[in-house]
Amino acid sequence: MYRQRLAALRQALAERKIDAFLLPRSDQYLNEDLAPADERLHWLSGFSGSQGLAVVTASDAALLVDGRYTVQAACECGDWLEVLDLDDGVLFDWLAQRLPAGANLAGDARLHSVAEWQGWQAAAERLGLHLIAVDGNPIDACWLDRPAASASAVSAQPLCWAGEAASEKLARLTAVLREHDCDALWLPAPDMVAWLLNVRGKDIAIAPLPFSSAMLYGDGGLDWFIDAGRLQLPDDWLPPQVRICPPEAASGLVGRLAQHACRRLWVDPQSCNADTMAQLRAASLDLYQEANPLLLMRACKNAAELEGSREAHRIDGLALCRFLHEFEAYPQRFVGEDELAVSAALADWRGRHADYRGVSFDTIAACAANGAQPHYLPKPGQAGRLERGELLLIDSGGQYPQGTTDVTRVLPLGPATVGQRALYTQVLRAHIALASCRFPGGTSGQQLDIIARRMMWQSGLDYGHGTGHGVGSYLQVHEGPHRIARHASPVPLRPGMITSIEPGVYLPGELGIRIENLYEVVACERHPGFLLFRALTLVPLEPTLIDRSQLSSEERSWLDDYQACVRDTLAPQLEPAVANWLRRKTAGAEQSAALH
Amino acid sequence: MYRQRLAALRQALAERKIDAFLLPRSDQYLNEDLAPADERLHWLSGFSGSQGLAVVTASDAALLVDGRYTVQAACECGDWLEVLDLDDGVLFDWLAQRLPAGANLAGDARLHSVAEWQGWQAAAERLGLHLIAVDGNPIDACWLDRPAASASAVSAQPLCWAGEAASEKLARLTAVLREHDCDALWLPAPDMVAWLLNVRGKDIAIAPLPFSSAMLYGDGGLDWFIDAGRLQLPDDWLPPQVRICPPEAASGLVGRLAQHACRRLWVDPQSCNADTMAQLRAASLDLYQEANPLLLMRACKNAAELEGSREAHRIDGLALCRFLHEFEAYPQRFVGEDELAVSAALADWRGRHADYRGVSFDTIAACAANGAQPHYLPKPGQAGRLERGELLLIDSGGQYPQGTTDVTRVLPLGPATVGQRALYTQVLRAHIALASCRFPGGTSGQQLDIIARRMMWQSGLDYGHGTGHGVGSYLQVHEGPHRIARHASPVPLRPGMITSIEPGVYLPGELGIRIENLYEVVACERHPGFLLFRALTLVPLEPTLIDRSQLSSEERSWLDDYQACVRDTLAPQLEPAVANWLRRKTAGAEQSAALH
Repeated sequence: MYRQRLAALRQALAERKIDAFLLPRSDQYLNEDLAPADERLHWLSGFSGSQGLAVVTASDAALLVDGRYTVQAACECGDWLEVLDLDDGVLFDWLAQRLPAGANLAGDARLHSVAEWQGWQAAAERLGLHLIAVDGNPIDACWLDRPAASASAVSAQPLCWAGEAASEKLARLTAVLREHDCDALWLPAPDMVAWLLNVRGKDIAIAPLPFSSAMLYGDGGLDWFIDAGRLQLPDDWLPPQVRICPPEAASGLVGRLAQHACRRLWVDPQSCNADTMAQLRAASLDLYQEANPLLLMRACKNAAELEGSREAHRIDGLALCRFLHEFEAYPQRFVGEDELAVSAALADWRGRHADYRGVSFDTIAACAANGAQPHYLPKPGQAGRLERGELLLIDSGGQYPQGTTDVTRVLPLGPATVGQRALYTQVLRAHIALASCRFPGGTSGQQLDIIARRMMWQSGLDYGHGTGHGVGSYLQVHEGPHRIARHASPVPLRPGMITSIEPGVYLPGELGIRIENLYEVVACERHPGFLLFRALTLVPLEPTLIDRSQLSSEERSWLDDYQACVRDTLAPQLEPAVANWLRRKTAGAEQSAALH
Repeated sequence: MYRQRLAALRQALAERKIDAFLLPRSDQYLNEDLAPADERLHWLSGFSGSQGLAVVTASDAALLVDGRYTVQAACECGDWLEVLDLDDGVLFDWLAQRLPAGANLAGDARLHSVAEWQGWQAAAERLGLHLIAVDGNPIDACWLDRPAASASAVSAQPLCWAGEAASEKLARLTAVLREHDCDALWLPAPDMVAWLLNVRGKDIAIAPLPFSSAMLYGDGGLDWFIDAGRLQLPDDWLPPQVRICPPEAASGLVGRLAQHACRRLWVDPQSCNADTMAQLRAASLDLYQEANPLLLMRACKNAAELEGSREAHRIDGLALCRFLHEFEAYPQRFVGEDELAVSAALADWRGRHADYRGVSFDTIAACAANGAQPHYLPKPGQAGRLERGELLLIDSGGQYPQGTTDVTRVLPLGPATVGQRALYTQVLRAHIALASCRFPGGTSGQQLDIIARRMMWQSGLDYGHGTGHGVGSYLQVHEGPHRIARHASPVPLRPGMITSIEPGVYLPGELGIRIENLYEVVACERHPGFLLFRALTLVPLEPTLIDRSQLSSEERSWLDDYQACVRDTLAPQLEPAVANWLRRKTAGAEQSAALH
C-alpha cells in the first residue's frame, strides 16, 4: 500500500519537475497535534510518531526521526524507506549523495517553521540546489480519500471560566501593540485566537481548538479568518470590532495590511510558518519580529482561570482516586490484562463526570520496561501486559471547561522491591526539591530546571526531558512561553502561571518512574518579592514506594502536607470505600511505617 | 585641584571641537586593574572605584557609577560633578538635555569594548550627534605629571609550573585556527600572551602581567608586540617562530595582516577594543567573531598547573592559619585597631614565605556593617574599627609562581550571637550545596548558580553578585571563560577548571557574611560522565559560627571531611601552638559541640 502511495507521489513530483520533496509531520499552524486531514506523513509512510520528516526522490526515500522513534519507525515503515537520525548533517549528506547540482528540492513552506525553512535554504545553497516552495502540497493530489478538513462547531468559553471578556483582552493586546509602535499583530495559531475571543472548538482530538487565525490592528479591529457557518456563539459574544473573514482571505494578508495602511507589523517568527513569513517579507513592511505578546498575557492566568483549574483538578482527582482504588482493590481486573485496559478504565472513570471533555493528550500507560520510554504509547495488539512485581507508569490528563489537567503516577503491581522504592524516593526528592523551592521574581524556568535534576545527578542519574511545561486553561496541555528546561526561553515565572513539575528516572529495559503534578505560581506572603509553587494536582503519592528514611525532615513535611491536602479536599466527596482507601494512602509518618 | 583639571580638559576639548567627552575607567587592554598611567578617571575625578564613566561638556560634568559606588563617588568627588546611575538610559537623557543636534560626542575608542562603542553609536544616532573616536586621549595632554607607562621586566614562568612549553601551546592554538579556516588570531590582552608564551611581568600591582599583545598566524608564527629591552628570558625560552615587534607596530595591524596574505581573521569582540575593531572592519578582511579559543585552552589547567595550585593553597593555608591563630590568641593586637591592621597582619604572614609575590587583589577586611558592601575596601583614615561582638569578613588572596589564591572567611569578635550563627550556617549550607554537587559534563556555571543561591532564597535572602569565577595560574584572580552566575556564558565546566564558590548574605547597616573557597573541577570516578568539585582552599571554617543542628547529615559529613582535610594537610607543617589551635578548630561533631 505504501509503495503505491510512494509511486503516486513520485509521479506527482515528476510532473512538477521536483527532484526531492521534504514532508514534515506538521500543519499550517505548526501544531504538535494534527487533524486527520493533516496526517500526510502517516498516510505516506505509516509512521505514527509525533515528529518526523520524510524525504523522497525519484529513486530513494528516507524517514528521519529522533532517538525515541528509531525502533518504532523501522517497525511501522518496513524496508521501502531508510530510517535515519533526525539530524541536519545526516539529511545534508543523504541529499548530497543523491542530487546533482541544479536539482530542485521542494517543500510545502506552510508546514515549516521560519527557522527550519532557513535551514533548508542554507543547505540548498551549499549543495547548489534550487529550494522551491510548492504551490499546493503534492500529497493532497495523490491522497484520494483524504478526510475533509476539520471544521467543528465553534462555541463560547463562558466568562465564568474565561474570567475576562474578549473586548478587554483585545483592548489590552492592542495597547501593547501601540506601545511598540506596531500597526498590526499576526495571530497565526488557533490556540491564540481561542484564548483571545473566548471560543473553543474540536478540530483536533485532544485540545478544544477551532482552526483559525487572525490579524489584530492598532485601531483594535480584528480580522478573524474562519468560516462563519461554523460559529455557534451567543448573540453579542464577539465584540463589534471583530470581523469574520473567510479562511481563504488569510492568503491575501499583504493586501489587507495595505488596505489598513499598516507600516509596521508584529510577527513572531517562532509561530509563523515559512510560507506566510515569505509573503510578509516580500511586501514593503517593517517587520517587528519578537515573541507574540499574547503568549505572556495568556500564561498569567486570571482569578477565574485559576479557580477553574483548581476545580478541574478536584474533579480529575476524584476520578483518579476512584481508578486507583479500583486498581488496588480489584487487581484481578488488571493484572494480566494489557496497558490499554488501564487507559480505558481511567477514561471510564473520568468520563463519568458531566464536565469531562476528553483526554488532554493520549494516555501513557506503561508497564515495566515500557516505562523507560518517556513518550511510550500503548497500541492495540502491541501493548504490554501488567505483570506482578513490575511498576506501572500512568501519565494522563483531562480536558474540562474549567481547565486542563496532566498528572503522572507510578503504581507497584504487588509489594514494591527495595530497588523500586529507592528509585521512586529519589524521584520524589527531586520533585519536592523544586516544588518546595522559593525563588525571587525574575527567576526563569531555565534556571529552576537544575533544582530537581541535581537530586538525580547526586546518584549519577538524569532524565532526557525538561522538568516542566506550561499548561493552558481548557486549551493545550503544552502552553508557553514559560517552561522549566535547560534550553527553555529565559522568560521569568510570574504569579498566575501554571507549570508541571515532572522529574523522572528511566532505566532502559527495566523501568521508568516519573512523578508529575501541576502547580500554580503564587506570591510568597512571608517574603515579599519571592514566589512559590502551590499544588493544583490532587492525587495521592504512593506510600508503599516511599522510603521515608531517605527523606529529610523538610521533605517529610512537604510530603505529609501534600497528602493531607489531597485527603482533606477529596475524601469528603468520595464514597466511603474510596474515602477510606484515600485516608490509608495519605496517612502520615506512623501509619505509613505500618504499611511496610 | 579637580576643578583645575576639569578646566584644563575643557580647554583641550574646545581646541578639538569636542562638545562632550566620555571617559571610562579602562585601558587599551580593557583590563579590570589599571597601571598608574592608565588611571585617567581617578586623575580627573578623584574617584577610586573599579568601575565608572565620566562625561564632560563645556558646562556640565557627571560621573556614572553603579549602586555599590554611589555613596563613595559622592564622598570622593565632591559637588563639582553630578553622580548618576551607571545606566544607558540615564546618560542618554543627560546628553539629550545638554547637547544640540549636530554636536560632537567623543571618546577614546581604545578604552571601550566593541559592544560599549556600538551602544554610543546607537545613542549618538538617536540624538543626532556625531560620535568621534579621538586620536590621542585629551586627558594625556592635560595630565602633566602622568606616570610613565609601565614597562616591567618580563621573566619566564618555569615549565615546572606552566606544565606545557610555549611551542606546544602555539601548536595547539594554531591547529584550532586552521580547523576554523582562519589565517590569523588577534590576541589583544596581556594575560593571553603571558599564558601562551609562559612569561610574567609586573605592569599592574595585583597580577603578574607584562603589557603586550600578539598576532598568531596560521603558519604558527607569532608577532609579539613588546619592547625587546624588557625581556629577561633564558636563551631559547621563546620558540623560534615568535617575532619580537615594537609595541607601536600593533597600530599597523591591517598592513601586517596584508603582508601575511591573511584573508580570514579570528577576532573575539569581547576582548578587542573598539579602536582596533574599527581598523579591522575597515580593512577587506573576513572577520570570524567568536570567543577566543585560547581562553578555554587556558581554563582547563594541566597537571602541573593543578599541582601548582594545590601547592600554592598549602602555602597560603599555612599563612592564613598562622594569622587566624594570632587573631584569636592575641585579640588585644586587633580589637580596637582598624581593618587595615588586619590586611597588614595578613600580608605580613603571607610575606614570610619566599614564594609569595603579593596580593592577588586588594584585601577586603570589613568589620560589622562594612561587610554588607561586598566590594568594600578599607582606606587609611576611613577604615572601620574592630569592635567586640561584631563579625569581621576577610576576602583576600595571594600570588605565588605555583598559582593564585582567593579565600573569604568570617570571624566573630568574641562569642557569636544566635543571629550571627544562624546566618553563617545558612551561607555555609548554600556553599556546601554547590560544593558537594555532582553534575554531568555539559553543565554550565550559568545552570549551577542557583544551587547555592536557592538555599538563601528559602529564607527570603539573596546576594547581589555571582556565585563563582574562574581563577588563573599565577595570573588574574578573575579568569574566564567560565563563571558561576546567572548571566554567565553557557560554556560548560570541564575537568581541570578552577572556580570559586562564594555565596553570601548582606544585611545593610548590620553585617556581611561570605564563605569562599576555590575548587578544581574533577571527573567523578563513581559515575562516569559526571563531574565534582574538589577543594583547593585549605583554611578552616569557623566552628563557633556554625549551628550544627541546622545541618543535614550530608552537610555535616561534608563539613567534617573538609575540616579534616585542612587539618591533616596543614597541621604537620605548623608549629605546635598553631597546629593545636587548628586541631581544635577542625574537631568533629563531639568536640565542636563542646565549644559552645
